Amino acid sequence: MTPYDPDNVFAKILRGDLPCHKVHEDADCLAFMDIMPRAPGHTLVIPKAPARTILDIVPASLTSLALAVQRVAKGVKAGMKADGLTIQQFNEPAGGQVVFHIHFHIIPRWNGQPLGPHASQMAPGDQLAAHAASIRAALG
Amino acid sequence: MTPYDPDNVFAKILRGDLPCHKVHEDADCLAFMDIMPRAPGHTLVIPKAPARTILDIVPASLTSLALAVQRVAKGVKAGMKADGLTIQQFNEPAGGQVVFHIHFHIIPRWNGQPLGPHASQMAPGDQLAAHAASIRAALG
Repeated sequence: MTPYDPDNVFAKILRGDLPCHKVHEDADCLAFMDIMPRAPGHTLVIPKAPARTILDIVPASLTSLALAVQRVAKGVKAGMKADGLTIQQFNEPAGGQVVFHIHFHIIPRWNGQPLGPHASQMAPGDQLAAHAASIRAALG
Repeated sequence: MTPYDPDNVFAKILRGDLPCHKVHEDADCLAFMDIMPRAPGHTLVIPKAPARTILDIVPASLTSLALAVQRVAKGVKAGMKADGLTIQQFNEPAGGQVVFHIHFHIIPRWNGQPLGPHASQMAPGDQLAAHAASIRAALG
């Protein structure tokens, strides 16, 4: 199995070397806006402990990640007034993974609106900040 | 929130009223082949406890489901000799959900092969049985 690369973009966010639009943080996990959203409010949830994919994440980190995904999913749905949510988790390049620190995509969906393409266009920072604020408010 | 419908297809599989090509079962979870695979080896993992989506599943059921997803993901990758895995979880019709018992899709992926369309064509039973056997063998 390919080893974890500590210089991936999400590791840099976790170290504070890169900024993010944060929506949730707890002892084990961090959630922030995807800067190339497939829909407004597209949020990522990652564990703080290093892991590349679903294959190498340790069980304690995986279970806390699952609970954080649930918590953030509720916030995304309420904060973005979504009708549904598409959750995705990609493993290895063949599986669609681009950043090699395990992450769950939480994508708000609305009836009749197809999903946009993966990682195609950078959203304006003020828009990401506004969506992050809506989701944080819904998380309480 | 829409209440759980005990007559959904996966509830019937859990009760034994409908058959499935099983690849894994533990006290809390069941995994079986998707009969309309988006790729050969496309497997579903569900909790035994009733829950409609990521929003209403109880924490203990969610954490055991996450661990089962990891276990089955390892089996799917090894059993299908995949290069990667795409994991998806759809919530409500707007989010892509078709059967209203929470489930994770584990889809094996190979380099250079695009993902097939969602729920479009029924696979032959003998093919599903063969893939289930490969995955079960990899799970050990």
